[in-house]
Amino acid sequence: MKSQALVRPIVRALKAYVPGEQPKIKGLIKLNTNENPYPPSPKVLAAIKSAVDGRLRLYPNPTAEPLRQELAKWHRCQLENIIVGNGSDELLALATRCFVEPGHHGASSVIQYLTPSYSLYPVLADIHGARRREVPLQSDFSLPPLAKFERSAALTFITTPNAPSGRGCATAELESLCRAHRGVVVLDETYVDFANENAMALAFKFPHVIVARTFSKAYSLCFQRVGYFVGHPDLIAALHKIRDSYNVNGLGQVAALATLRDLPYYRANFKRIIATRARLTDDLAKLGFETLPSQANFIFTKPPRFPAARWLEELRRKKILVRWFDCPETRAFLRITIGTESEAAALARAAAAILRKFLGSTPPNAVRY
Amino acid sequence: MKSQALVRPIVRALKAYVPGEQPKIKGLIKLNTNENPYPPSPKVLAAIKSAVDGRLRLYPNPTAEPLRQELAKWHRCQLENIIVGNGSDELLALATRCFVEPGHHGASSVIQYLTPSYSLYPVLADIHGARRREVPLQSDFSLPPLAKFERSAALTFITTPNAPSGRGCATAELESLCRAHRGVVVLDETYVDFANENAMALAFKFPHVIVARTFSKAYSLCFQRVGYFVGHPDLIAALHKIRDSYNVNGLGQVAALATLRDLPYYRANFKRIIATRARLTDDLAKLGFETLPSQANFIFTKPPRFPAARWLEELRRKKILVRWFDCPETRAFLRITIGTESEAAALARAAAAILRKFLGSTPPNAVRY
Repeated sequence: MKSQALVRPIVRALKAYVPGEQPKIKGLIKLNTNENPYPPSPKVLAAIKSAVDGRLRLYPNPTAEPLRQELAKWHRCQLENIIVGNGSDELLALATRCFVEPGHHGASSVIQYLTPSYSLYPVLADIHGARRREVPLQSDFSLPPLAKFERSAALTFITTPNAPSGRGCATAELESLCRAHRGVVVLDETYVDFANENAMALAFKFPHVIVARTFSKAYSLCFQRVGYFVGHPDLIAALHKIRDSYNVNGLGQVAALATLRDLPYYRANFKRIIATRARLTDDLAKLGFETLPSQANFIFTKPPRFPAARWLEELRRKKILVRWFDCPETRAFLRITIGTESEAAALARAAAAILRKFLGSTPPNAVRY
Repeated sequence: MKSQALVRPIVRALKAYVPGEQPKIKGLIKLNTNENPYPPSPKVLAAIKSAVDGRLRLYPNPTAEPLRQELAKWHRCQLENIIVGNGSDELLALATRCFVEPGHHGASSVIQYLTPSYSLYPVLADIHGARRREVPLQSDFSLPPLAKFERSAALTFITTPNAPSGRGCATAELESLCRAHRGVVVLDETYVDFANENAMALAFKFPHVIVARTFSKAYSLCFQRVGYFVGHPDLIAALHKIRDSYNVNGLGQVAALATLRDLPYYRANFKRIIATRARLTDDLAKLGFETLPSQANFIFTKPPRFPAARWLEELRRKKILVRWFDCPETRAFLRITIGTESEAAALARAAAAILRKFLGSTPPNAVRY
């Protein structure tokens, strides 16, 4: 018997999603997976440490209730509006299984998403056996007109601010988009803490809109896998039914709860990252990089002189890891996570050095690092 | 628009799985969810604490590779034989989505499992829209003859040792069962560390057999959600394709890895629990409880004189929480987790006191606590 034959054809046909590299190279400056350069707050670390004892033998709270209570206070809603997941990735996957019919049942089998945006969405569609519907962003990576969307798609994912472009969407624009849709719309606000506005109000205004948030990036907790959805109690209750019973690990719950009790620490970090983003954009502009306006903790930038793929390699040689996506719309760009001030300065210096090497003995005005 | 209408009919029809109670009552003796009464080893706690620092901002290893390497050494297999999950519950759910066609496609849509056994299996079948096929255990809770199984069922779950009965299966018997099946067989060895033998060898002998293990119960790590599957690389690779990219939280990986480096600590606990199990079985027998032979960290016992449901309540009044399952085959029994020596003694004393109260002024010989 061949084991392959035991696997569903739909799974056999899948390629696995490739997450951003997590290499362990000493001295590497890691600007490829949009992690926060600052550690969790000392109070959060202390709270986790003090929970590391004999209680680990017990099951965690199966519904993450204390955490959901605190989230409900923060967002001024009810416990029933919130579900916590093993990272928001788990919840995005649950949404496909909860709201989308696998197969070819017209609009009720359609998962719709912007391109380029989070590369997980098509993977989730394929895993579920749903129909993918891509809605290309405009050439400046702004939202396409409403006419481009299938309004009755079972599930629409909107990353806002967008990744990898970093562009934000005005809440008014998102509201029109939500109003136009009849299926479930997930506003994936992974990067929203680095933006000027957020669309949380839409999760309460519309019964078919869910806002996705995560503790991973803004709150420096990638390691612990805690994300959440906010939405109408009917949608949230349906998601609860199909999740694993103990889907959120205990120390993750402890960490997230402690985070909510120390928000000023994180808000200070957001400000630093936003300031570094402005500075880096400026520094790179002087070298000829064309950077899209960013509302996230990364920039999407078109490097000068030679292809982005080569920039990726040249920077890697200088122990700086950034991200490059090999698709027609993204090929000319690098996505660079905003690190600490000194990491961003190191990146700018490395870029200048690479340019100098490339230009040989003809130093243009732009290269002054 | 009603939000309910946005939920797939199959999900609307589901009832949620009800996990064992996790009440926070002071002084409660909690013997209802088969947690280990002993804490993780001091070395494990130290390893977790020393990992609680700025690294929490980074993603965990997406494939749990260091942990899988150590597991591969332990089980004398390759990295490719192993997948780690967010508790084994996640992996059981992944198996349904990987190996079973939803709908009504004959045997390829069938999830088969013993009754009574882990109450999650029918829930997983319903969530996936698969066909449930129940194979009743014999009246003494031993395995039914092979003729009772559908040999080409896409997926068969065998809990061994069984829950809630606590009965073990001889590996030879499991081998015949595996040999007879053509679909995937998952041997769910959640409780195997408390048994006389394990069936891990079958995961290497048969290309369609997977062994499920967990760090939750035997290794006192329920809180951190780490389980794993061992099986043929083709099956494991297929499961990897459909899991979330970062499905195992970082501190869980750290904890499990440290656990594998301190196994003698845990083996000593297994011995204590097994000794307490024998002692408790004996003590309860003197009160008229009929206990099935157990190979797990719990016993399944028929209490004397009045219904098990009332025993559940009487024990609860004495702040002892045990589990009762309201099904025809299980209704006469209590499932009691083996706690510490003193918890087990407290249970026996409480049972004696309940009996004394019930019997009023006629103390039978049996009640001597």
